[in-house]
Amino acid sequence: MKAVPSSGWARFETDYHEFPECDLALDLSRLSWEPGYVAQMAKPMERVFAHMKALEGGAIANPDEKRQVGHYWLRDAALAPDPTQAQAVRDAIAQVKAFAHEVHSGALKGQSGEFRNVLVVGIGGSALGPQLVANALGDGRRDRLRPAFLDNTDPDGIDRALQPLREALGRTLVLVISKSGGTPETRNGMLEVAAAYRSQGLEFARHAVAVTQFSDQSSLYRLANDSKAPWLRCFPMWDWVGGRTSVTSAVGLLPAALQGLDIDGLLAGARQCDVLTRRDLVTANPAALMALAWHHTGGGRGAKDMVVLPYKDRLDTMARYLQQLIMESLGKELDLDQRVVNQGIAVYGNKGSTDQHAYVQQLREGLNNFFVTFIEVLRDREGASIEVEPGITAGDFLNGFLLGTRAALHEKGRESVTLTLGRLDAFTLGTLIALFERTVGLYAALVNINAYHQPGVEAGKKAASAILGVKSAVLGVLKASPGKGFTAEALSAELETKSRAAGDAEVVFKICQHLAANPQTGVQRTHATPPTRSLFSYQHAS
Amino acid sequence: MKAVPSSGWARFETDYHEFPECDLALDLSRLSWEPGYVAQMAKPMERVFAHMKALEGGAIANPDEKRQVGHYWLRDAALAPDPTQAQAVRDAIAQVKAFAHEVHSGALKGQSGEFRNVLVVGIGGSALGPQLVANALGDGRRDRLRPAFLDNTDPDGIDRALQPLREALGRTLVLVISKSGGTPETRNGMLEVAAAYRSQGLEFARHAVAVTQFSDQSSLYRLANDSKAPWLRCFPMWDWVGGRTSVTSAVGLLPAALQGLDIDGLLAGARQCDVLTRRDLVTANPAALMALAWHHTGGGRGAKDMVVLPYKDRLDTMARYLQQLIMESLGKELDLDQRVVNQGIAVYGNKGSTDQHAYVQQLREGLNNFFVTFIEVLRDREGASIEVEPGITAGDFLNGFLLGTRAALHEKGRESVTLTLGRLDAFTLGTLIALFERTVGLYAALVNINAYHQPGVEAGKKAASAILGVKSAVLGVLKASPGKGFTAEALSAELETKSRAAGDAEVVFKICQHLAANPQTGVQRTHATPPTRSLFSYQHAS
Repeated sequence: MKAVPSSGWARFETDYHEFPECDLALDLSRLSWEPGYVAQMAKPMERVFAHMKALEGGAIANPDEKRQVGHYWLRDAALAPDPTQAQAVRDAIAQVKAFAHEVHSGALKGQSGEFRNVLVVGIGGSALGPQLVANALGDGRRDRLRPAFLDNTDPDGIDRALQPLREALGRTLVLVISKSGGTPETRNGMLEVAAAYRSQGLEFARHAVAVTQFSDQSSLYRLANDSKAPWLRCFPMWDWVGGRTSVTSAVGLLPAALQGLDIDGLLAGARQCDVLTRRDLVTANPAALMALAWHHTGGGRGAKDMVVLPYKDRLDTMARYLQQLIMESLGKELDLDQRVVNQGIAVYGNKGSTDQHAYVQQLREGLNNFFVTFIEVLRDREGASIEVEPGITAGDFLNGFLLGTRAALHEKGRESVTLTLGRLDAFTLGTLIALFERTVGLYAALVNINAYHQPGVEAGKKAASAILGVKSAVLGVLKASPGKGFTAEALSAELETKSRAAGDAEVVFKICQHLAANPQTGVQRTHATPPTRSLFSYQHAS
Repeated sequence: MKAVPSSGWARFETDYHEFPECDLALDLSRLSWEPGYVAQMAKPMERVFAHMKALEGGAIANPDEKRQVGHYWLRDAALAPDPTQAQAVRDAIAQVKAFAHEVHSGALKGQSGEFRNVLVVGIGGSALGPQLVANALGDGRRDRLRPAFLDNTDPDGIDRALQPLREALGRTLVLVISKSGGTPETRNGMLEVAAAYRSQGLEFARHAVAVTQFSDQSSLYRLANDSKAPWLRCFPMWDWVGGRTSVTSAVGLLPAALQGLDIDGLLAGARQCDVLTRRDLVTANPAALMALAWHHTGGGRGAKDMVVLPYKDRLDTMARYLQQLIMESLGKELDLDQRVVNQGIAVYGNKGSTDQHAYVQQLREGLNNFFVTFIEVLRDREGASIEVEPGITAGDFLNGFLLGTRAALHEKGRESVTLTLGRLDAFTLGTLIALFERTVGLYAALVNINAYHQPGVEAGKKAASAILGVKSAVLGVLKASPGKGFTAEALSAELETKSRAAGDAEVVFKICQHLAANPQTGVQRTHATPPTRSLFSYQHAS
């Protein structure tokens, strides 16, 4: 009886794969799949590889939106089917580097002097990639510019993001990133930031840079090119790059270059991993192997959650990044034949060994409704380590906890996949990003869904927009009769007759509750029992 | 047809509950439960309330570890069954305040001057509570001490946490928090931090404070009380407080008080919520209602994941905090009658509306394997807001996105619970913490499990410890024959004969791979095909 339970050496020899070109290894020996599974899936994988080849060749791989899917061209422009696209990719990279050089050299300054900070205003695909890279590769006080992020429309959150920059706005470069140019959270953040500049007598436009589609359909593009107050620069996004796969476009490269990170290394790692994951022999292709692992463990229908556990503090944004990449790509109601399939894989996690002290209790003993993706980084740190016990370093403990946890889970029939990187740097981060992008693409093709659209996101936006309409209408009714108290039901009835923006009494109640909590609105609440019968009235704005 | 789908006013009037004592409301109208469910569960809930009453009265509520469960006494010492416990709670709070005053007033200084920073070294229950509070209530540059955290044994992560403090160690207070005093990650972090102090000619003990059990069984307690170099202070933890419910003990109060936060408010909010959630009428008790919501939606066996979405940036640590509180408490193999039940509820989430741009696509369209817990905060910010559209603020958008998203999910049959706070402050944060603690306790009693132990965590620790043993043995074999190359299989065979620390070839391979990636070890790898046949040899430490 071994102290450390394992699957056995023979199983490990079969299911452990190294890819030295990418400083990467993949261990599938802790999956409970039968030996013949990979061979058995060779036939469906042929179709999958053909699909991916067509996609990379420029086919309309996102049929709903009638778009090409070109994120693989971002790191190998020569692959783009259209020479104009190839040139656009090359130009954008050159412009990013040239701009970063202008900023670092001090040729381009803010109103108070050389730029010291870069504030990224964006959300979703326009924030998670930049956050992942900044966090994984950033070097604290050695960074050329200190990165900060504003990724929501929370007023208090905006105050909080701006607070440490208040005295340095004149030396802060603001990157506003929105592909469509119309994302409300980003627009709101930008307006609040611009107001902060104005309040200090600074010109926002002299500190502002946009990343958006070059089209007058983007209000961000129009604003950045306003002849009265043009922004410093505008970098392109293209409709053939999705937000969640945009980290190797200007969206990810520009903040990284400004921070002083190695964007050539990032692109090289992604490019090299693309070469590897283009192979049509499954056992030689880590993305194909991972896609099959996902398929087997979740029965091709996401029956198991994916717990992402990188044993490296720098990768503690990885799980959130993958949450978006995987869930937004795979979480679909319909397949490509328009059948209802309700696909997806739920993704969560933070970092090891920290999370062992949070929920590994449940992973080992509780519901067996997950598989773990361990991410191991072999190199502990740049310098030498002290001993924390004779002959043992903190890094040995980290490694021991990873191996110990996967053994303890395996012993209880909990599956895992282990990705190993020799070290964490720009190159291997690029590799990781490209590996998961490709795995998602292959898995989506395998289960026959469109990984490149997000039709379910619209409904929430439309409902939110309707709610803002109801809010204005509610406030209109209240203001028309100052001092008069209305129940939510009475207000709702008024709206039915007076306004097209009808919301039912529940929505009206929720809106009034929010109004009454913010003195600026002038709305007051008189409590009643039951609380749903409370009276709301307009007094005066404070 | 309404623009905003809802459950209807009648349903809302039944399932919307306000608790003004706690500035709290709970909306269960978006659950798909039948109207009579709460009444139907009244009988089992009687047993649950009796169990909770016994627990609060000092019964051995954690039978495996034969311990009392006393976190409710931390905010109302008079409830503690033993006057010694009550006095200990009161004394600890007074000592925390007195110590914070000493530090803030400058009466107690570091070697380089008044303390400016507080570095918390801890993991799991000794980190997540302090992080939650620091993040939710912190005020950036207005904080009395700037908080930082070291919550892992990642060498690079330790370097990263220390980097911004390097020049300020002499003005940094280090809190080392470990109930048992023997958590290896915390011990390692402490040793690395102490080495950093030493390397600058500073005395670590003059900047160090411990929070641990007052017992010689705690190596941390012994170290902090070493007569040669006693630490500044030692604060108590008790065996009747679990790590994941320790945030209202010195574990959470000390860092918060040092940061300058309102710990009286935090305790008052928790105490007030305890009063509320002690009620044995389900509809008057928000924790009982939540426990029934969890029970219904997951069929009493955690069939649905819980997605935690606070629409407030300051609460972006909440999901991680709840992940620990809920999963470590509920994720159990055996019930109290020793039957195999594999219980649990998987918890994940970050914040809204940010996450709408990440995975709400899957929530609305994909797998229906979850319910959402929305956390709404009505007050947008302290000051006034600008308009981002005529009559509309950034906070209106945040509110609109919350209401819009839950409507869009509801429309597709996805369930949710909404918690509403009037504002976010120390009091309501205390309320939230106590609410979830009590909900977990009630739910655990309902499904008949021990919520207060974590037997599954030990296996991983033991396996990790075994791996460290194998590592030392492997290095011993390699060093005994410098320059000689061994395969993992050969090394494993050597260990079988020479050492009790036997690991199979897979574990040996993984250990060697880690050794060879860190030059300090002197181990080199000669690659082979297949990679599992690579040769490892000891050359010389670099």
